[in-house]
Amino acid sequence: AILDLLNEYHHADIAEILEDLNTEQASYIIKLLDSEKTSEILMEMDEGDREKILATLSTKEIAEEIEELDTDDAADMIAELSEERQIEVIAQIEDEEHKAEIRELLTYDEDTAGGLMAKELVRVNENWTVTECVREMRAQAENVTRVHSIYVVDGNEKLIGRLSLKDLLMASPRAHISTVYIPKVDFVDVNEDAEEVARIMQKYDLEAIPVVDENKVLLGRITIDDIVDVIKEEAEKDYQMAAGITQDVEADDSILQLTRARLPWLFLGLVGGIGAFLIMEGFKGTFEKYAVLFFFTPLIAAMAGNVGVQSSAIIVQGLANDDVKGSINKRLIKEMFLAALNGFILALFLFAFVWITKGSFLTALAISVSLVAVIIIAGLIGTFVPLFLDKKGIDPAIATGPFITTSNDIFGILIYFWIAKLILGI
Amino acid sequence: AILDLLNEYHHADIAEILEDLNTEQASYIIKLLDSEKTSEILMEMDEGDREKILATLSTKEIAEEIEELDTDDAADMIAELSEERQIEVIAQIEDEEHKAEIRELLTYDEDTAGGLMAKELVRVNENWTVTECVREMRAQAENVTRVHSIYVVDGNEKLIGRLSLKDLLMASPRAHISTVYIPKVDFVDVNEDAEEVARIMQKYDLEAIPVVDENKVLLGRITIDDIVDVIKEEAEKDYQMAAGITQDVEADDSILQLTRARLPWLFLGLVGGIGAFLIMEGFKGTFEKYAVLFFFTPLIAAMAGNVGVQSSAIIVQGLANDDVKGSINKRLIKEMFLAALNGFILALFLFAFVWITKGSFLTALAISVSLVAVIIIAGLIGTFVPLFLDKKGIDPAIATGPFITTSNDIFGILIYFWIAKLILGI
Ligand SMILES: [Mg+2]
Ligand SMILES: [Mg+2]
Ligand SMILES: [Mg+2]
Ligand SMILES: [Mg+2]
Ligand SMILES: [Mg+2]
Ligand SMILES: [Mg+2]
Ligand SMILES: [Mg+2]
Ligand SMILES: [Mg+2]
Ligand SMILES: [Mg+2]
Ligand SMILES: [Mg+2]
Ligand SMILES: [Mg+2]
Ligand SMILES: [Mg+2]
Ligand SMILES: [Mg+2]
Repeated sequence: AILDLLNEYHHADIAEILEDLNTEQASYIIKLLDSEKTSEILMEMDEGDREKILATLSTKEIAEEIEELDTDDAADMIAELSEERQIEVIAQIEDEEHKAEIRELLTYDEDTAGGLMAKELVRVNENWTVTECVREMRAQAENVTRVHSIYVVDGNEKLIGRLSLKDLLMASPRAHISTVYIPKVDFVDVNEDAEEVARIMQKYDLEAIPVVDENKVLLGRITIDDIVDVIKEEAEKDYQMAAGITQDVEADDSILQLTRARLPWLFLGLVGGIGAFLIMEGFKGTFEKYAVLFFFTPLIAAMAGNVGVQSSAIIVQGLANDDVKGSINKRLIKEMFLAALNGFILALFLFAFVWITKGSFLTALAISVSLVAVIIIAGLIGTFVPLFLDKKGIDPAIATGPFITTSNDIFGILIYFWIAKLILGI
Repeated sequence: AILDLLNEYHHADIAEILEDLNTEQASYIIKLLDSEKTSEILMEMDEGDREKILATLSTKEIAEEIEELDTDDAADMIAELSEERQIEVIAQIEDEEHKAEIRELLTYDEDTAGGLMAKELVRVNENWTVTECVREMRAQAENVTRVHSIYVVDGNEKLIGRLSLKDLLMASPRAHISTVYIPKVDFVDVNEDAEEVARIMQKYDLEAIPVVDENKVLLGRITIDDIVDVIKEEAEKDYQMAAGITQDVEADDSILQLTRARLPWLFLGLVGGIGAFLIMEGFKGTFEKYAVLFFFTPLIAAMAGNVGVQSSAIIVQGLANDDVKGSINKRLIKEMFLAALNGFILALFLFAFVWITKGSFLTALAISVSLVAVIIIAGLIGTFVPLFLDKKGIDPAIATGPFITTSNDIFGILIYFWIAKLILGI
């Protein structure tokens, strides 16, 4: 009865249900259902939950799941196993072609086009007629859930063009493929970065893109559903990094997992706070009579942090969208003007507040001039650090959030006291 | 010559080129090229850049662009014009059917399924044969760039199922559609929220989804390329909000635009900083002999801010993915334990630092106990505020970044001094 009920549901829905059960229960249901369905369910689950269930299955059982999956998902699932189990599972795959294709896919880096592509696609030779092509296609299409484009290759298996099902439906049956195919076809190299593939598919509104090697030999195909997942995951990762959360965690994860993701960044903040403390203590003697200066340090730190986060976020986003062009110097000059403008407006208010409440023109001046300087420096750091990391090949997204706020807290407070000292002439 | 050169390029590439030119130059090229191409180019450009070019075109010229666009893009482009120009442009559209369809689309809210859908789709009646269907489809498909699914309707235009091109290719020509169509079809209501549509299409790996009214009458179709844009835009908006940037800006926007997006949040930070100042001044007398306490306020503010941002980010992301289930109380209790654990570990380090460097057990105890309390409160605020906003129907994403850091700065410093006062027995 529960079987019939579950079979009514889409595999993505069952995956959600299983994620709310404990491993034992979920594993029980997986063993109960047909592997045609369970393979898809497993692929829809969180990596962590899937891993737990796979641990309860024999290598033979996993091999059965693998047989049902498209090559891209099959390779991804195998890649999550220990090396030992990988070998055992692969050995037990019966379909030799499937096995060879999975072996090939396992050789590519997961963050590249090769790591995203599947071997399933419809490929026709330029020398066939439309009728031959439809016949071949019927055979090939059995393994291909969605056809999208039919890829046209020459005698050397090189990609030379494409054909839509619509074109095929509308063409005369006796026509040669070479006379009806569209020679303009987008494609990506097998080593292309996954995020770049996503950018290309989004820009050109593609639903599938063929993948080729350096000789333009057709190797596989990437479909938009997998790219949607890449886009989502990338966005979530960047969002979490900006919030000071490393590792992929969800609201429902355990306290321990969440601590592991959050504590390192908090620790960074602690070290930064101790740095700020040391700076303030260093200026203690100088400012015995200007206690009021110390009361503004949270304001200074907050402004430095906020400006830094704003400017780094814009740069990180611009880099991700590939539209940060031009020299670093030009960016820095622009950010300097921007920060100076914002800082000046804010400093006016702060000046008025301090002058009115404290009655000291010089103190008000010292604090507000410092604020402008701090904001400019914070903006420059927020702009420079991600650009610099990007140049060095490091993901600039780590330069947002706690990283920027912590360093800006320290620099901000240092500059603040230093300039205040200068203006107050101490 | 330049025309031939540009015609070789994809419209998305030309759009990028035009965005780097000034309005006069871009408008010149738009007027030069054929509207079949320029309509697509215009749709690929940034809204701001497009607006500037449309301002240089007559309503007649805009109507010509509109004629070439699919109904979804046509409606979007018209919606960006002033009401006056909208009426003029619509009046000049020659294709009466296109005009009526655009008028209909203009009635839907842009953040709903109706605002995303296009009227272009292939629709067949359940009573037709496969042959009739192919004939009809050939006619309809002329207007439909990508067919995806063929939607099957009954005599009342109600959606009852679908058919893929592949199914059609493989079915016997004399078969009745009613015997070959797939009755299981995903669909969304025309008033469904755009983000929910994106979630559904991602979850079920759909490339297109039909849109129906409350009687299940087929109204239109949403395609994945537009959903990819929704996902991207939503992610970027949330990211910017978390960084304290309102309004959709890019690294290349003008200093004025960037100031307008950034200054309000900085101003909030300024007000928060003044609040922190007032609190510290209030405790001034009490702590004359504990100056060291004041030197730790940036640390306290930073920790409160970081914890608040972390917990709010996880909640905001969970809400966006629809996987924050269960009661608010349970969430708060979990966050309390999580924050207490993190806080305790961090406080141990701080305690050791203060005790060793300052030699005062009581001061060290006061500062570290306060830190734990501040972290717990910060975590609770970060968890509660987005959940509360979401319940009230307000986008919880505004509760991240400056909003949370500013309120946590104030609360954090207040709690810190209050607890320190208690422990030191002043
Ligand atoms: Mg989970
Ligand atoms: Mg892979
Ligand atoms: Mg696009
Ligand atoms: Mg588009
Ligand atoms: Mg796939
Ligand atoms: Mg990234
Ligand atoms: Mg622009
Ligand atoms: Mg629209
Ligand atoms: Mg999906
Ligand atoms: Mg999938
Ligand atoms: Mg569209
Ligand atoms: Mg949102
Ligand atoms: Mg801060």
